[in-house]
Amino acid sequence: MRMRKKKHGAERIAACADLFIQNGTEITEKPVEIEIGCGKGAFIAALAQQNPDVTYVAIEKISDVILLAAEKIKSSHIANVRFLISDAAKIGELFSPGSVRRIYLNFSDPWPKSGYYKRRLTYQSFLSLYRSLLTDEGEIVFKTDNAAFFAFSLEQFTAAGFHLKNLTDDLHNSSFAENNIMTEYEKIFSEKGFPIHHVIAFLPPSNDQPEKRI
Amino acid sequence: MRMRKKKHGAERIAACADLFIQNGTEITEKPVEIEIGCGKGAFIAALAQQNPDVTYVAIEKISDVILLAAEKIKSSHIANVRFLISDAAKIGELFSPGSVRRIYLNFSDPWPKSGYYKRRLTYQSFLSLYRSLLTDEGEIVFKTDNAAFFAFSLEQFTAAGFHLKNLTDDLHNSSFAENNIMTEYEKIFSEKGFPIHHVIAFLPPSNDQPEKRI
Repeated sequence: MRMRKKKHGAERIAACADLFIQNGTEITEKPVEIEIGCGKGAFIAALAQQNPDVTYVAIEKISDVILLAAEKIKSSHIANVRFLISDAAKIGELFSPGSVRRIYLNFSDPWPKSGYYKRRLTYQSFLSLYRSLLTDEGEIVFKTDNAAFFAFSLEQFTAAGFHLKNLTDDLHNSSFAENNIMTEYEKIFSEKGFPIHHVIAFLPPSNDQPEKRI
Repeated sequence: MRMRKKKHGAERIAACADLFIQNGTEITEKPVEIEIGCGKGAFIAALAQQNPDVTYVAIEKISDVILLAAEKIKSSHIANVRFLISDAAKIGELFSPGSVRRIYLNFSDPWPKSGYYKRRLTYQSFLSLYRSLLTDEGEIVFKTDNAAFFAFSLEQFTAAGFHLKNLTDDLHNSSFAENNIMTEYEKIFSEKGFPIHHVIAFLPPSNDQPEKRI
């Protein structure tokens, strides 16, 4: 998302300084869940309020966007969200292996042109990163309005050894709608009638035997 | 599949009588796996040869088709396949609960017109049937060349509480291609360049907690 440079950005970030971390290892309370690409933070704010015992780290590479999210958390007095300015490709250096229970990917950039598929946040190189960060029961929760990106992602999840659950091509009319928290983007697109695709990818128990037959 | 009435059908079935069963409970050796809609039997014949310790029940409602399959098994001296002439809707009466380890659905009729979706073999009423028959580690292995039927089926599996693995929209170019056994239909359609969709639906461990959040 491109937006105009925020006025007094540095000062405003400083006013929320207690919410920013440089590294995920600064979080000592478990469980930890992260959102990659938190945008303006409506999703993570609502989720954190529903689950006060979980510590959330909202990650965003655009500092002007994350500022809005941090100000929202600050003004709402939500205690269990921290912010990390980072590119997704670097999160392998920012969290300990096996330390993250859930990774939320909400309406990540679909990079629709075929030449850019390696930038999609569900591309196998990212999935390897996520896999190393996730706990044994770890999950990736993925939503998108882009059908092609969704199909691509299902293939990538499967090829990387993830199993899938709660898969739907129309989240808002599915049995999973009740507990769904909409992002800002999701509200706009679903109001226009676009269905939302959703899936949870998870790691099979490590004692699973490899498949001999398909 | 419609075909001309086979000559001497009754006599030929009689010649393979030892391969036919009236009820799945006649099978006493475990594990048991079934194919619903076995067609001419190329798939089940190859699978049974690869896995001699599994007993397979090939189910087909069209007796002229199942005859060809039975003759193939008979002439190949394959000992671990039995045949059952039945409609899929009746298999709940033909197997004991929790007795089937795998159900294969290969290129089932997609019933593409929307008014007939309840006849699709992955419709929720069938999935409930399958669920009652499957063992705790039971799986449904599903292949189709029909993208719309595949998407429908993923939704139905998920809504019925199944988890998914080995999902691909192009089986023959996926990491699961190596162990794939092609059906007669699959050979024809894949040679025409149509990709084959594939997924395994399985029941989550019964100690899984229900999802509070999605």
